[in-house]
Amino acid sequence: MTIFEKIIAREIPARIVYETDEFLAFHDVNPQAPVHVLIVPKHVIPRIAAASADDAALLGRMLVASGEVAKKLGVAESGYRLVINNGPDAGETVPHLHMHLLGGRDLTWPPG
Amino acid sequence: MTIFEKIIAREIPARIVYETDEFLAFHDVNPQAPVHVLIVPKHVIPRIAAASADDAALLGRMLVASGEVAKKLGVAESGYRLVINNGPDAGETVPHLHMHLLGGRDLTWPPG
Repeated sequence: MTIFEKIIAREIPARIVYETDEFLAFHDVNPQAPVHVLIVPKHVIPRIAAASADDAALLGRMLVASGEVAKKLGVAESGYRLVINNGPDAGETVPHLHMHLLGGRDLTWPPG
Repeated sequence: MTIFEKIIAREIPARIVYETDEFLAFHDVNPQAPVHVLIVPKHVIPRIAAASADDAALLGRMLVASGEVAKKLGVAESGYRLVINNGPDAGETVPHLHMHLLGGRDLTWPPG
């Protein structure tokens, strides 16, 4: 059981900002911007490379949900960056697919 | 008509790496990593904040397609980062939704 499953099960606390039947969004414990939230599907897919065609609709709803999260956190107009890390070179840490949403400051380029 | 529509229409050349009925993927002209590709839905959605529930399935297939692109470019195992920029703070440049796929080097944190 990863840390994200424990957060979803309310076994580990998190600063939750958004929840639906399918997704939980909460503040990153090591924020890299004034707004830095993780959007996590409750259904476990280890990483985006492991996603199949059957997961597409869920993943699309995750992207659409990010707009709701951005509104809720006041960065819909100022802007935000969505990031998904896959594998060692990207620094993927938890084998439970999640998407970072960062905003509230000027985000530089390259993205890491 | 944005530059991406012109690339999709083959009016502007690009180094294309992947194409389906729904998506075109091509090398970024200002690469920020050894592998830096843009995955672009042919159907125009200006930005992720403008996506509606009707767009979810297409967007999910874009995420699943990124796995194919990563395999094709040899970064499926070494790792890669997916990035979507929305609005001014994220440096969104072209109002035609697209996703960056970067790999082939150690990608640092924060992601910009």
